[in-house]
Amino acid sequence: MPKKTQQKNVDRRGSIEIVPLLGLPEIQAGDDLSGLIVSACKKQKLRIRNGDVFVVAHKVVSKAERRLVLLDSVKPSEQATEWAAQYQKDPRVFQLILNETGRIVRMDRGVIIAETRHGFVCANAAVDTSNVPEGCAVLLPKDPDRSARVLQKQLTNTFGTAIGVIISDTFGRPWREGIVNVALGVAGMAALEDYRGKRDVMGKMMQATLIAQADELAGAAELVMGKTNRVPVAVVRGVRLAGRSGSGRDLIRAPDRDLFR
Amino acid sequence: MPKKTQQKNVDRRGSIEIVPLLGLPEIQAGDDLSGLIVSACKKQKLRIRNGDVFVVAHKVVSKAERRLVLLDSVKPSEQATEWAAQYQKDPRVFQLILNETGRIVRMDRGVIIAETRHGFVCANAAVDTSNVPEGCAVLLPKDPDRSARVLQKQLTNTFGTAIGVIISDTFGRPWREGIVNVALGVAGMAALEDYRGKRDVMGKMMQATLIAQADELAGAAELVMGKTNRVPVAVVRGVRLAGRSGSGRDLIRAPDRDLFR
Repeated sequence: MPKKTQQKNVDRRGSIEIVPLLGLPEIQAGDDLSGLIVSACKKQKLRIRNGDVFVVAHKVVSKAERRLVLLDSVKPSEQATEWAAQYQKDPRVFQLILNETGRIVRMDRGVIIAETRHGFVCANAAVDTSNVPEGCAVLLPKDPDRSARVLQKQLTNTFGTAIGVIISDTFGRPWREGIVNVALGVAGMAALEDYRGKRDVMGKMMQATLIAQADELAGAAELVMGKTNRVPVAVVRGVRLAGRSGSGRDLIRAPDRDLFR
Repeated sequence: MPKKTQQKNVDRRGSIEIVPLLGLPEIQAGDDLSGLIVSACKKQKLRIRNGDVFVVAHKVVSKAERRLVLLDSVKPSEQATEWAAQYQKDPRVFQLILNETGRIVRMDRGVIIAETRHGFVCANAAVDTSNVPEGCAVLLPKDPDRSARVLQKQLTNTFGTAIGVIISDTFGRPWREGIVNVALGVAGMAALEDYRGKRDVMGKMMQATLIAQADELAGAAELVMGKTNRVPVAVVRGVRLAGRSGSGRDLIRAPDRDLFR
């Protein structure tokens, strides 16, 4: 059978596609991120469909929202200076970590696990000095859900079809090696898929099954984004979205349900 | 411009596709899983390519490997019976949890977080009663890496091209709501992508960046697998694999690097 016919007959029902957005420029403070995303989609001839999800690395959102900080503008406190020496960090970076921190979860073996003021638990309160200009650090967006909502509205209006937006960052996790991309801000889609009360394949009622769909989507998008190529945005299409509204806050475990505070 | 031409011109460089395998029967003890996977691929006219990754829900591996347990065959100890009452569980299920457990990490508020004998930390030592016949529970494969290696070898031989295999299960995590699919067994591919020593977009040396690529792949595959449809296997294609060898053990954090034992 000729190759072409074979490929045409492939049964792709339920398939998902993850397309990296290739043409984005280096994002600058004050840039119109949604405008740049729309241009990149056009250049790539990517027709946006209802239910497509844009996964956007927080770094470009932070840059556009002026959350890139010149380290020379930071005056470290005595506390920050003392801990920085102990943790072999730049005291100015340590000061930024403390500024972003609502609560220190663990401080041990050169690692700081902090709960950010938003409620995310991660290393260094997500203060990052990689993939930013020399002498700078990047902070999380002030309100990733708000950033997601703004982008979602602008992109939905421009494309004339309802899309989802996830603002993501790579976080570590206890017990498992390596970091994975997760969803911090979510708009236009559910963050969690709720199977409670549904029946399994055997007809049995399922208990306590909540799938973090937005986190799985963020991780899926990371597979095309990478850390060293300049691909901060990916479009995921074909996902059976669990719903059309939700937020990144939905993914933060309530303290009374958390055994690892 | 006609629709067809537009679609043809879409720039899909670097795209990933996730295809659910639709035609698998209910897996029984002793089944030839790789044979059934090959048949399902053929039925779907899916031509397997070098570097394709098969993500396989552990449940079908466990069923084939006779890790489905009849609860009536389990005799709970006094300890299991006492705790089961306290935790509102079936004492026989509780006994299975204890059998699978190497170390209890937390036991609180009706939740048991246990380290399995393999070293995975998860709820109930991964003993599961959903999507299995009434009166049964399913355990993790005895050695998920071995299961992955066997499948990888068989599928690579049959298809005549090197593929990757991930055996997955859905795990919860501290601080974040919901469960996500993760990789327990890995073969024919790296589990982690190591950016240490590589330079970021700005030319700066990156530190301590290990991406859990196999976990992101498992999560991506879950998006087409679902909990209530019978899709225990998905093929992910187009991923720039970080390497062609690795294991699920690579994803288990060493105790001396873990602040949340």
